[in-house]
Amino acid sequence: MKKIAIFPGDGIGPEIVDAARLVLDAVDHAAGLNLQCTDGLVGGAALDAADDPLPEASLQLAMAADAVILGAVGGPRWDDLPPAKRPEQGLLRLRKNLDLFANLRPAQIFPQLLSASPLRPELVRDVDILVVRELTGDIYFGQPRAAEVLDGKRRAYNTMVYDEDEIRRIAHVAFKAAQGRRKQLCSVDKANVLETTRLWREVVTELAAEYPDVHLSHMYVDNAAMQLIRAPSQFDVLLTGNMFGDILSDEASQLTGSIGMLPSASLGEGRGMYEPIHGSAPDIAGQDKANPLATILSVAMMLRHSLGNEPWAQRVEMAVQKVLDEGLRTADIAAAGEAVIGTRAMGHAVVKAL
Amino acid sequence: MKKIAIFPGDGIGPEIVDAARLVLDAVDHAAGLNLQCTDGLVGGAALDAADDPLPEASLQLAMAADAVILGAVGGPRWDDLPPAKRPEQGLLRLRKNLDLFANLRPAQIFPQLLSASPLRPELVRDVDILVVRELTGDIYFGQPRAAEVLDGKRRAYNTMVYDEDEIRRIAHVAFKAAQGRRKQLCSVDKANVLETTRLWREVVTELAAEYPDVHLSHMYVDNAAMQLIRAPSQFDVLLTGNMFGDILSDEASQLTGSIGMLPSASLGEGRGMYEPIHGSAPDIAGQDKANPLATILSVAMMLRHSLGNEPWAQRVEMAVQKVLDEGLRTADIAAAGEAVIGTRAMGHAVVKAL
Ligand SMILES: CC(C)[C@H](C(=O)O)[C@@H](O)C(=O)O
Ligand SMILES: CC(C)[C@H](C(=O)O)[C@@H](O)C(=O)O
Repeated sequence: MKKIAIFPGDGIGPEIVDAARLVLDAVDHAAGLNLQCTDGLVGGAALDAADDPLPEASLQLAMAADAVILGAVGGPRWDDLPPAKRPEQGLLRLRKNLDLFANLRPAQIFPQLLSASPLRPELVRDVDILVVRELTGDIYFGQPRAAEVLDGKRRAYNTMVYDEDEIRRIAHVAFKAAQGRRKQLCSVDKANVLETTRLWREVVTELAAEYPDVHLSHMYVDNAAMQLIRAPSQFDVLLTGNMFGDILSDEASQLTGSIGMLPSASLGEGRGMYEPIHGSAPDIAGQDKANPLATILSVAMMLRHSLGNEPWAQRVEMAVQKVLDEGLRTADIAAAGEAVIGTRAMGHAVVKAL
Repeated sequence: MKKIAIFPGDGIGPEIVDAARLVLDAVDHAAGLNLQCTDGLVGGAALDAADDPLPEASLQLAMAADAVILGAVGGPRWDDLPPAKRPEQGLLRLRKNLDLFANLRPAQIFPQLLSASPLRPELVRDVDILVVRELTGDIYFGQPRAAEVLDGKRRAYNTMVYDEDEIRRIAHVAFKAAQGRRKQLCSVDKANVLETTRLWREVVTELAAEYPDVHLSHMYVDNAAMQLIRAPSQFDVLLTGNMFGDILSDEASQLTGSIGMLPSASLGEGRGMYEPIHGSAPDIAGQDKANPLATILSVAMMLRHSLGNEPWAQRVEMAVQKVLDEGLRTADIAAAGEAVIGTRAMGHAVVKAL
């Protein structure tokens, strides 16, 4: 028996999670997984209900679970709240409290959706990048941090900080991921300016000896931002800190032109959290328009990484390919003139394709 | 009489600067500017000659000048030197010592080179973005910063920091630039996570009242990295801090597909520094292959911003358009099968077109 905590969150979160639930239930029955799923509140939904973006009950639910599925958090309704009372804090506190230090964000082209890419097709046809982003350190959580008034002048600061253990554990994840892929690891830093990322480069370089089959390279973050557009298929695994990874993984995902298709996993030593990389899209919430495939592919990642069930992970991924091959499209991935189906119908289609 | 300090720098620096010098001399004579140009050493060239990436004599030369022209710095020869002895330090110290807080980086499509863009032509046809990047603050210069060993464990940290004065002065530059353009200003931050950028958003928002004709919007840096690829023509002026601007301005420049064409200006209260945004390209140094147009367009920016000579700035820009119209191409901007000319020949062609 495995415990799954489900946090639908805000905006389109509940709809896409419901569609993914159809798939999860189907797999559960067919594979006899004996999952025990429990819903919880996070983000704006939790703020509304309990004045806290991550109520204690939600944290406990997540801590007791083997895996967490999250829809999306945030929306304009909560934008004017003080920092500690913002939906994103729920997400950040989940990551930190569950020690989910490794964020895996694949940016992969679906051949059926090639024309959705903003890039010329010949540049993106072979794009298959895995961004491995450190998720519990860096300037996101670094101390000291403050906004203050000094001599009558407002100033604010944050601290970018890493120690060698933090760098080492995420680098191991990236090296291992590269071993299971095309064996190319590119580590991103700004070692020509920042001490923090100079240590990053040093520690990553030391580990290379343990992975002689992986080719390690280093790239400055500004150059990486260029190369992702200029020649994205040069990349296999991209290893980044938390801040640079936030920027580059979003950039990489946009290359595909279909961020409604991209899942993510956030892993710690034990439990993992799985969520689509797209946001809560409040403008289309509740209209059965959202694309649930990123969430469904996040379920596949959960089967792979938290439930150790590679065969069913692949089946879910193949089912998604199949519905795309059949020409089924939600609005976000439909080309001009193509017929469009809703969130729920897409969920059912994947179940059928399973 | 105006004093111009010229730092050719490393790699292709000397060649592209020599080509730009042809143009500068031609303008000087035709317009009767009475320029006094003096060369100095910076970067690797200065390290080789004086074991310092910015020798005191170079700093004095720059301080005494009305404007500085810089080629490019850096190269593999100096990559293994200790941090303080790297070519980039020359550049960073010039920026800081001259208080060049405003980095203007236009990313503009040349219609003649549309096919060089990695993006689909319909997405980039109208791209004309000005990135206004703060250049003397942020995590680049923030204190404290260190690499240390704590309880036997290596760790390193840097400080992202801004005060309201620093934010205000760069925001004024961006608002004014927007007034002279399409009146759209998008300020980039990560206000949902970082106190520093929350203050950034606050101060920029306060200034908006002084520029009622400019439409101000705010965007998170990760979203900006996406939107630059998804729909780049939505942007007019992009205002960023130093670190985010390093990443986003390189990303924006790559949209054009021809970074050999893009100039930049770094402005302070008085003096300005002008340089191409591309690097020192050691692989093609000394071969008369490099594209000097970015440096020539940097001369145009110098005429505009430091010499107050808008008519001649425009003439230089028009001359560059003209050589492109005539089909003249250096290797980096030539389409397959197109005839190619060298660095020097391109310089002469622009002089002729003037
Ligand atoms: C919502 C926000 C705090 C979050 C982040 O910056 O990490 C998001 O952008 C992401 O990438 O998951
Ligand atoms: C060379 C480096 C220090 C510099 C920077 O990071 O500012 C460069 O990337 C730039 O953008 O001018």
